[in-house]
Amino acid sequence: MRSSIQAQSGVCIPLSKGQKLKVFDMHGEQVSDLFCVDKYDHSNYFSANRTLDYNDSLMLTKGHQLYSNSSDVLMTILEDSCGTHDLLMPPCSLKMFQIVAGDNQYHPSCHENLVKSLADHDVPESFVSTTFNIFMNVFVDPSGKLEIKSPKSKPGDYILFQAERDLLVGLTACSHEQTNNGRCKPIEYQIM
Amino acid sequence: MRSSIQAQSGVCIPLSKGQKLKVFDMHGEQVSDLFCVDKYDHSNYFSANRTLDYNDSLMLTKGHQLYSNSSDVLMTILEDSCGTHDLLMPPCSLKMFQIVAGDNQYHPSCHENLVKSLADHDVPESFVSTTFNIFMNVFVDPSGKLEIKSPKSKPGDYILFQAERDLLVGLTACSHEQTNNGRCKPIEYQIM
Repeated sequence: MRSSIQAQSGVCIPLSKGQKLKVFDMHGEQVSDLFCVDKYDHSNYFSANRTLDYNDSLMLTKGHQLYSNSSDVLMTILEDSCGTHDLLMPPCSLKMFQIVAGDNQYHPSCHENLVKSLADHDVPESFVSTTFNIFMNVFVDPSGKLEIKSPKSKPGDYILFQAERDLLVGLTACSHEQTNNGRCKPIEYQIM
Repeated sequence: MRSSIQAQSGVCIPLSKGQKLKVFDMHGEQVSDLFCVDKYDHSNYFSANRTLDYNDSLMLTKGHQLYSNSSDVLMTILEDSCGTHDLLMPPCSLKMFQIVAGDNQYHPSCHENLVKSLADHDVPESFVSTTFNIFMNVFVDPSGKLEIKSPKSKPGDYILFQAERDLLVGLTACSHEQTNNGRCKPIEYQIM
């Protein structure tokens, strides 16, 4: 059975070793930030940088694995119908909106949604750092300049993960309008 | 007065707001990993990912600023005679050497050297995550594939930082032979 993550919100999904998590973009052009920690040792949290190092690539897809800051394998990507995701950008945050937009208005964010969802399981905010940004499309210029482009995901695109240890997985429907081609939409997921 | 960081080792440098830190590669082709935390709130630690986001670039140089996971400005780069540094790779670690080399031999690492240096100031290992890798040269292929190349730094090249708040700065002479064109050398620094 599929569950829905409302637009600009997030959930925490406990996942046992061997269980699978399928994340769907049913509307197209919608990003979902994924963060995870070892269920029994929250200081063993997802590291985008260890992950890109051990996979020798910024572009994760089928067959690649997600690593923790302690270099443990957390998840394996079993299937991927889209092929374009991001390992560079941190989750959007209230401070990011304030720095980028230059005002102090409140704005929902993936960082806040991940922190709140994981706080119910006693994961401290200080561990919520880097994310695997499913369906996010970031262009890297040869000069190193970065540009957020519209996601390449079409309605129905999905990615399938397998947990390689017992995990707490934070998952969002990204709150940043620009990242999602102007409109923040829901995300669906299924535990298998 | 200049101080030296022996090959394959690290130090912790307390730096007050406004103080400057100059890091020299006196031998050429030698990387130095930099990590820092707010002196009074260690959970407010350097984030390579927030840094690349707010600077819109993977390539930091003069005028760019280093940010924390809480989006605070930690340091500003005032001068840079080299121009090629890395924000992608995590600090080399014992587990990295084991995973990459496939054996269980001990090897010194930037991660261990940063953790040990900062532990004297009660910074927990779980906060030592991403680093600014001074003089490191990582090539990003248009496909996203990553390749560690020899540093572009020549003997005498330097980078000058200004602390934007009171900090504890971890600084290493990188332990990874491949990253440093086959030979791990010392690094020099000066507090101004």
